[in-house]
Amino acid sequence: MTTIIRSLLFLLTVGLLAMSAAKPTRVVFFGDSITQAGVGPGGYIDRLKKMLPSDQFELIGAGIGGNKIYDLFLRMDDDVLAKQPDVVIVWVGVNDVWHKASFGTGTDPDKFVKFYEALVKKLKAANARVMLCTPAAIGEKTDFSNQQDGDLNQYSQLIRDLAKRQNIPLIDLRKAFLEYNMKNNPENKEKGILTTDRVHLNEAGNILVAEQMQKALTEAVK
Amino acid sequence: MTTIIRSLLFLLTVGLLAMSAAKPTRVVFFGDSITQAGVGPGGYIDRLKKMLPSDQFELIGAGIGGNKIYDLFLRMDDDVLAKQPDVVIVWVGVNDVWHKASFGTGTDPDKFVKFYEALVKKLKAANARVMLCTPAAIGEKTDFSNQQDGDLNQYSQLIRDLAKRQNIPLIDLRKAFLEYNMKNNPENKEKGILTTDRVHLNEAGNILVAEQMQKALTEAVK
Amino acid sequence: MTTIIRSLLFLLTVGLLAMSAAKPTRVVFFGDSITQAGVGPGGYIDRLKKMLPSDQFELIGAGIGGNKIYDLFLRMDDDVLAKQPDVVIVWVGVNDVWHKASFGTGTDPDKFVKFYEALVKKLKAANARVMLCTPAAIGEKTDFSNQQDGDLNQYSQLIRDLAKRQNIPLIDLRKAFLEYNMKNNPENKEKGILTTDRVHLNEAGNILVAEQMQKALTEAVK
Amino acid sequence: MTTIIRSLLFLLTVGLLAMSAAKPTRVVFFGDSITQAGVGPGGYIDRLKKMLPSDQFELIGAGIGGNKIYDLFLRMDDDVLAKQPDVVIVWVGVNDVWHKASFGTGTDPDKFVKFYEALVKKLKAANARVMLCTPAAIGEKTDFSNQQDGDLNQYSQLIRDLAKRQNIPLIDLRKAFLEYNMKNNPENKEKGILTTDRVHLNEAGNILVAEQMQKALTEAVK
Repeated sequence: MTTIIRSLLFLLTVGLLAMSAAKPTRVVFFGDSITQAGVGPGGYIDRLKKMLPSDQFELIGAGIGGNKIYDLFLRMDDDVLAKQPDVVIVWVGVNDVWHKASFGTGTDPDKFVKFYEALVKKLKAANARVMLCTPAAIGEKTDFSNQQDGDLNQYSQLIRDLAKRQNIPLIDLRKAFLEYNMKNNPENKEKGILTTDRVHLNEAGNILVAEQMQKALTEAVK
Repeated sequence: MTTIIRSLLFLLTVGLLAMSAAKPTRVVFFGDSITQAGVGPGGYIDRLKKMLPSDQFELIGAGIGGNKIYDLFLRMDDDVLAKQPDVVIVWVGVNDVWHKASFGTGTDPDKFVKFYEALVKKLKAANARVMLCTPAAIGEKTDFSNQQDGDLNQYSQLIRDLAKRQNIPLIDLRKAFLEYNMKNNPENKEKGILTTDRVHLNEAGNILVAEQMQKALTEAVK
Repeated sequence: MTTIIRSLLFLLTVGLLAMSAAKPTRVVFFGDSITQAGVGPGGYIDRLKKMLPSDQFELIGAGIGGNKIYDLFLRMDDDVLAKQPDVVIVWVGVNDVWHKASFGTGTDPDKFVKFYEALVKKLKAANARVMLCTPAAIGEKTDFSNQQDGDLNQYSQLIRDLAKRQNIPLIDLRKAFLEYNMKNNPENKEKGILTTDRVHLNEAGNILVAEQMQKALTEAVK
Repeated sequence: MTTIIRSLLFLLTVGLLAMSAAKPTRVVFFGDSITQAGVGPGGYIDRLKKMLPSDQFELIGAGIGGNKIYDLFLRMDDDVLAKQPDVVIVWVGVNDVWHKASFGTGTDPDKFVKFYEALVKKLKAANARVMLCTPAAIGEKTDFSNQQDGDLNQYSQLIRDLAKRQNIPLIDLRKAFLEYNMKNNPENKEKGILTTDRVHLNEAGNILVAEQMQKALTEAVK
């Protein structure tokens, strides 16, 4: 029910925006392979396009597989700022953690924060509103025994701290995923609840992310 | 209070054992650097020597720094079986997890179980009673954001499952450490509560481990 | 030409052996996925069967994918000693090095030597003649720029030193692969010369290994 | 003797420059802990200051411990461009390789090139002349059995290729170190020839690097 009211409010907000502004709000989704897949059919960006009025929102995917925070920083001029976005939703962190074990090329936590701060600074300087996401999952087991859980929790906290410190809206996907799994993953499965392969989103995952993003975008444009 | 009653029961048990058996129960503590330090002044084995009647228990340390499960397996003939122990308390796992990140030489979970099973099999064949411990901690933060928390939880669960499967007494130090930290580490510190350096025991840590071991030994010799 | 003479000598040796001994020499090939594939059609063990007289030699593959030195040690009773081999050719090391980068679960050099020594000791105690091989390749580039070249050279040297120290025949496959590549890989390709995928043998690789093994077996049974 | 002639030529060059230009050439040394130590007494930058006429050259150290290529990129505006350098000598790569094994946070080869290219592009855009160095050593053994030799050779080649592709002067320190060790390290020691600890420069190392830099600077300002 709250969802319905929220949706109505959202549409109202959007309607008011529509009257005052001719141009739709341009949102760039800036991230890794999860975001790259998000523009495909059924992906979370594809879903958001149907959930948000197209005359109010222009949604642009800017995800590239394997990207870590410093990859985003390196390509932000070309792939984000060149598009003159009104809003940039940054969702990164899985590879910064995961690549430690799989390639030996993850990102140190202090460097992660430094690059994230530099990224945010540059986005703000370009008058883009920034929204941050926490990395959702590498494994869905609910007993905190996924190999990267410790690191994912640490890096998520670093992002939460950064959002708080700079008063930036946060989409806490890690929290949302954990809560969803606590309810819907009684067998402590490592995948198949919100992901296909412990990391990338299945249908339920795309729906959950789209809902979280919709909610955040609604509050951001209020 | 239960502790007092338990201690009395323990002394009673020990007393009965004393009447029936002339020889003290020989216990070998088989592990890594934590156990190696355990025999030093104030170490958990040193403390246990004072907590248990010396005519009832003979305590022998067999810890070597950097050891993983397969190192224990390799040296068990010389360092454990040659001593003809009545009880062997195996405490290993921290390096199997930790060395993944620090040297690239940790232990795969399936290999961990295989070697642990082979170790237990050989100890049982030598008529030693076996007791298993879970790895206590690599970092004491209570929000599950220590880098190795995911893996430590997984390997601890593998040990719990093995103990259950083979009906072996378990000393769940990881559980004990987490509970202690939940109560005594409100500031989410990474060390200094039960460890000096996130891994090795400080005074409180040695006391906690000694208590857990005493309790388990009591129940084992009942 | 030398090859022809060597082959004749080999057949002569084998012939003399044939007269004196009714039972063929039982050779177990003990190793990882490369050896596991070696028994398949065109594999190096399959080729050796055709290159050696079947009444003189019985060749048995005992390779399991992903095995490191300590995995061999753990399963040697069941998979090797139970077969009462006359000769055991040990070929291991690639995963001990490779798994450092890909899983964080490689083998420390000092542990590698310790387990290898324990393995050899046990094989000798069972009256098996042992032959050691160096790990051939992880990448075939000839300018020493394959990521694991440094480690492979180190572990190969550890094996050479062990062979020398204990007077054990050595099949120096790493040396043979390097020499072959120096001649036949002018374009500094990373695969396709002796391997299909930088590690596992293609046809030329299987032929080269079979020849090296034949030569070594010939000298061993002289 | 060639060195004397070269030095005379160099002084001549510098003399001619002195007549035409009042301002000394400002050189920034941009790198990691090796460069950070280079400004200390006896360090290679300290030595260069004595080897080059101070009215002709102003030498500024900009090294920070633990830096990888992307750290240089992140801080180049503040630490290099703000100093309006005439020449920037970039010396990086050891941590990009080393941190794979020690922290799981090295740099992928393709990312290494991407960031290096972006760095060079920005330096050139600021009208700085750029000079590249190859990473000298992680271990001094001459039989290519230092653990990171394969990677160091690969990353050095990536730098050589970049220098060639963009027609940038190259100071091939890896080559110089290897050649020096081939002559002066007959016992295949892992440290103590040019380094104190396999990586950081001892006196001979600082002298060798200073000579290489002097030579390159001479040719650059010709």
